[in-house]
Amino acid sequence: MNQEFDAITHLFQARTPFRHPTTTLGNGDDASVHHIPENMEVVISTDTAVEGVHWPKDMSLGIAGSRAINAALSDLAAMGATPAWVWLAISAKDKPSLSQMSRGIVQACVTHHIELAGGDTVNAVVNSITVTVGGLVPKGAAMRRNAAIPGDKVWILGDLGLSAAGLQQWLQNKPSGRFISHFQTITPLYKQGIALREMGIQSCIDISDGLLQDLNHISQASQVGIDIDIHLIQKLDSYQNLTSELNAENALKMMLGGGEDYALCCTAPDTKHHLLTKLGAKHIGCCNKGSGVQLVQHGTMMDYNIKGYDHFD
Amino acid sequence: MNQEFDAITHLFQARTPFRHPTTTLGNGDDASVHHIPENMEVVISTDTAVEGVHWPKDMSLGIAGSRAINAALSDLAAMGATPAWVWLAISAKDKPSLSQMSRGIVQACVTHHIELAGGDTVNAVVNSITVTVGGLVPKGAAMRRNAAIPGDKVWILGDLGLSAAGLQQWLQNKPSGRFISHFQTITPLYKQGIALREMGIQSCIDISDGLLQDLNHISQASQVGIDIDIHLIQKLDSYQNLTSELNAENALKMMLGGGEDYALCCTAPDTKHHLLTKLGAKHIGCCNKGSGVQLVQHGTMMDYNIKGYDHFD
Repeated sequence: MNQEFDAITHLFQARTPFRHPTTTLGNGDDASVHHIPENMEVVISTDTAVEGVHWPKDMSLGIAGSRAINAALSDLAAMGATPAWVWLAISAKDKPSLSQMSRGIVQACVTHHIELAGGDTVNAVVNSITVTVGGLVPKGAAMRRNAAIPGDKVWILGDLGLSAAGLQQWLQNKPSGRFISHFQTITPLYKQGIALREMGIQSCIDISDGLLQDLNHISQASQVGIDIDIHLIQKLDSYQNLTSELNAENALKMMLGGGEDYALCCTAPDTKHHLLTKLGAKHIGCCNKGSGVQLVQHGTMMDYNIKGYDHFD
Repeated sequence: MNQEFDAITHLFQARTPFRHPTTTLGNGDDASVHHIPENMEVVISTDTAVEGVHWPKDMSLGIAGSRAINAALSDLAAMGATPAWVWLAISAKDKPSLSQMSRGIVQACVTHHIELAGGDTVNAVVNSITVTVGGLVPKGAAMRRNAAIPGDKVWILGDLGLSAAGLQQWLQNKPSGRFISHFQTITPLYKQGIALREMGIQSCIDISDGLLQDLNHISQASQVGIDIDIHLIQKLDSYQNLTSELNAENALKMMLGGGEDYALCCTAPDTKHHLLTKLGAKHIGCCNKGSGVQLVQHGTMMDYNIKGYDHFD
């Protein structure tokens, strides 16, 4: 699809001049070519955002563009990788839509110094943005979902629930709602991800579908049980922030199952307590020899029915 | 989008067990991790195919799935890269659509021994498949668009026009049309691409939007003029094949501007003549010190008005 590529070249290339030092052939050929230093590994992730599914139809397409890039960068954050390149696949209803999405995409690429290494634009009946991001991590050091062990504490870095509350306010036609900016502006925590990896953390995930649902991935991949302490959740700044407008039940619902948080959640042995605290991480639970994710209060298991977002259900 | 990832894991992982030797962390985490040998470079490309745009709405979604993978692999062929991994982003109207697309995708991944290293599935109003492919190429050896020089001959490997003629037959409701299989079945020529690269070819492109339009990319990137000899085009097997059903004018139109050929077009000095002929490549023109792409007949420039496919026009 070379002709559409021209559109991308035209729209993006001049405005995203950053070229990563690993790149030997950048945007404008059939593919990009990169030379990876021997002591590093390449980390790749793909994410799609669709209008009406991942962002409301009445929200700015520029915001949708920057959200798509930043959400993808959050996956690199979870691995402890340094972002390097992005490849775009944009479906646009028309040229104005393409142009508006491009504005947010360019802004995010420039902010985070990532190279636009290639892409494809097509005309379709719905606006959507697929972002493939690539980054670098020292050999063998990538954080993963399958490295939690019983006895690890569970830590959170970043906000929980504010984004979901913001989306709710937008959908309820409260354009001046105090949480809306938390939905519209994703801050990918890759600097914090790198810091976690550098302090020797091995197990991490980013919270995109809701805390409990994403923790379930760690639980399954690592074959550990995870207890999340409701009192520790209620001590988080996000809880204080949310309960200024929502009741306690709704605030917890947003924090435990709201999704689109792009917070980082890691597990670590007690020896990392001091370093994690210094980085601003908060302790919210523990890993054990059981299975599944449990909410506990005063040491007692709580029933909960908080599910993250699921397509095709 | 971890939950959708589960759908992919469920649908694809068991059926695409191939793991590339470079992969240190595969499908199922926030990103995949790969260790690239010091003497190799990594080559990445992204392509999107949308129902109703890149394939007719009444064509099988399984065929659409395999076409999407094979079209993406053709970009690696143009670089002379060996395919290694694929990351998927699938938008599906419903679960049956997802399942049908998956069948073709899995088949193509298995056929070409490529690893499904990650992906994302979302529910959307239109079916579409974005494929990011990655491969490996020896350091500094990737073929590119900007390496043609005046005096190079232009060579073609693969069919021209048969795919476009097949699409036309499908759209004209001729389900038994002899060219339809050429549209439905894309054969990515990466083995031929590797052979070209190994014989020292430096300049290559795959023909996805029509021969003349894609040659224009080489012309612009390399700052050379390109003359395509209509007599040499008429000597190709594809021309004989097409003119058994189409008149000469339509056959040429399909071959020069039809698109979706996924043939390889390279330029090379005369010293490569013997090797290229042995590989089955056909000489169709020459590079010169001018600019732009010209059709010539008996040494005279011909007018032509054959344009490739362009979105947003």
